[in-house]
Amino acid sequence: MVEPANTVGIPLNHAALLKDELDIVIPTIRNLDFLEMWRPFLQPYHLIIVQDGDPSKTIAVPEGFDYELYNRNDINRILGPKASCISFKDSACRCFGYMVSKKKYIFTIDDDCFVAKDPSGKAVNALEQHIKNLLCPSSPFFFNTLYDPYREGADFVRGYPFSLREGVSTAVSHGLWLNIPDYDAPTQLVKPKERNTRYVDAVMTIPKGTLFPMCGMNLAFDRDLIGPAMYFGLMGDGQPIGRYDDMWAGWCVKVICDHLGLGVKTGLPYIYHSKASNPFVNLKKEYKGIFWQEDIIPFFQSAKLSKEAVTVQQCYLELSKLVKEKLSPIDPYFDKLADAMVTWIEAWDELNPATKA
Amino acid sequence: MVEPANTVGIPLNHAALLKDELDIVIPTIRNLDFLEMWRPFLQPYHLIIVQDGDPSKTIAVPEGFDYELYNRNDINRILGPKASCISFKDSACRCFGYMVSKKKYIFTIDDDCFVAKDPSGKAVNALEQHIKNLLCPSSPFFFNTLYDPYREGADFVRGYPFSLREGVSTAVSHGLWLNIPDYDAPTQLVKPKERNTRYVDAVMTIPKGTLFPMCGMNLAFDRDLIGPAMYFGLMGDGQPIGRYDDMWAGWCVKVICDHLGLGVKTGLPYIYHSKASNPFVNLKKEYKGIFWQEDIIPFFQSAKLSKEAVTVQQCYLELSKLVKEKLSPIDPYFDKLADAMVTWIEAWDELNPATKA
Repeated sequence: MVEPANTVGIPLNHAALLKDELDIVIPTIRNLDFLEMWRPFLQPYHLIIVQDGDPSKTIAVPEGFDYELYNRNDINRILGPKASCISFKDSACRCFGYMVSKKKYIFTIDDDCFVAKDPSGKAVNALEQHIKNLLCPSSPFFFNTLYDPYREGADFVRGYPFSLREGVSTAVSHGLWLNIPDYDAPTQLVKPKERNTRYVDAVMTIPKGTLFPMCGMNLAFDRDLIGPAMYFGLMGDGQPIGRYDDMWAGWCVKVICDHLGLGVKTGLPYIYHSKASNPFVNLKKEYKGIFWQEDIIPFFQSAKLSKEAVTVQQCYLELSKLVKEKLSPIDPYFDKLADAMVTWIEAWDELNPATKA
Repeated sequence: MVEPANTVGIPLNHAALLKDELDIVIPTIRNLDFLEMWRPFLQPYHLIIVQDGDPSKTIAVPEGFDYELYNRNDINRILGPKASCISFKDSACRCFGYMVSKKKYIFTIDDDCFVAKDPSGKAVNALEQHIKNLLCPSSPFFFNTLYDPYREGADFVRGYPFSLREGVSTAVSHGLWLNIPDYDAPTQLVKPKERNTRYVDAVMTIPKGTLFPMCGMNLAFDRDLIGPAMYFGLMGDGQPIGRYDDMWAGWCVKVICDHLGLGVKTGLPYIYHSKASNPFVNLKKEYKGIFWQEDIIPFFQSAKLSKEAVTVQQCYLELSKLVKEKLSPIDPYFDKLADAMVTWIEAWDELNPATKA
């Protein structure tokens, strides 16, 4: 039986890495008691809390944490009509936090995620590992069989081209989950008792040209490199689909990272995921996604961006046009989504005006 | 400090998996004392020993092992003029063993590889894990973040297309090495004391379209699915290059697996690699490979086989033509190698005549 780590007695991390360059984004509908366990690792950082659902409800945040909190009224006030691109009653709303942040790095985590233990029993400082992943390069052009070649005790193996050993900048660090794995509703229904107990001590680059299912539960990224592509789409209230917010972002992000020559890493760090969501509710949210993805994934696998697209925004707007052209025939939803992708970029640019000369 | 496992007292594996369908191929120039440690796991299987170097030398094989042994005289006698495609004074000669085998599966291992221990201290039955890898499918078309979805306790994660969950047949299982990592000469020189102590408890499919550095030290494959592509090239005596035999095979194999829709897995099992070869000697063998690979890898990355190539032999002959056309301008060696690739297929077909109606 996997259990979360006990973090009581772990001293506060005063030498917190990138303390002034990283925001932690948490979407929630409840009190953030889960932060107590994270205190030794996360208290030095600034939190951006995106409150989903009823804005009149008060969310309690444990004492000592530095935070700003946005509810739906705040989102509407700040974005005006452009607020339509931010989902409601779905954790997709978290991407509003990415937009209002002014920091270079984002770590986002769900409020049912706790501190995991490594096989030696030590509490895993997930954020520290994400930062390591983001600060060292990726190697998307050729596979390294000993996993991350930049990690201590590892290197590129025989036969790895020397010209590729500098690697490329890492834009995304995708962490994993012990205990409750991130399964879809059908798999949850078939294997209700399956728990992930396997701690795989590896970080790796997802190769160029390969898509992956990006989960938003335990995720970090470089906002400067890829932020405008981290749009979690239109999900939840008033939409025909849910639980595909992070998947949508992941497909877009990977296509754009591949186009721009940026890296995506997956593997460590683990968090301890405590609570499986209800598979029957999930099935209802997912069911359109489950058959749409059979068309969406080939679409993203073959999506080609033009040489003229050199910024994330340009790439994203090109992608929105392709979505409108190729996915709208599947369902009018994609027409709306393509428009929302454009609105998202407009809102992003409004809140993040270019500062360069 | 990593140490090999102690296998004394482990009972012989009488219920050996695929005992009558698998051969173990070992290239060697010395007595095979290393087999003592492998006895509990490998004794039930048939060995094909390919003796490199001086054919008048006698190689001692520990008692109780069932084997056939081929030296250079045997190779010349069996293949006649076609023996020119089999390397001499290089472990590339091992591929002769793949050719004379009549079994469906091959496991090949170097004679400086010992039984590794897993983190619990248990001796790793490498062959058993290879067989597991080969008998369960691969998933090359989309990345699964929880690694091999077919492994016990794992599955496909949310967002993995259902149409791809059947997977494809696995043709190759590439195992890894604890203790001495498989580094090239420059890395050996720079990090003479680096040892691999990280046991990564994972098996994964190398995605379609991604090349990898295949090491021949601890490798298993399905001869029926990919055998004729497992040619280890012209290396060693009389050739301008060494230590690229397995790399060459790996590039060819991966391109053909991708074309034919077959899977390549890497990760578990580990063996304990005991002895680093001399980096100065290695540098001399590798130095042409080190700069040639900068052109060879882009060549393989862009190599396209025709729809008409539907057997491994057809694919391999197409590849030999591409090698002649595109790599010969780099060095006349590739012209010779392309011819040897054709000779290899001729020899393969001679020893393995088609049995189907």
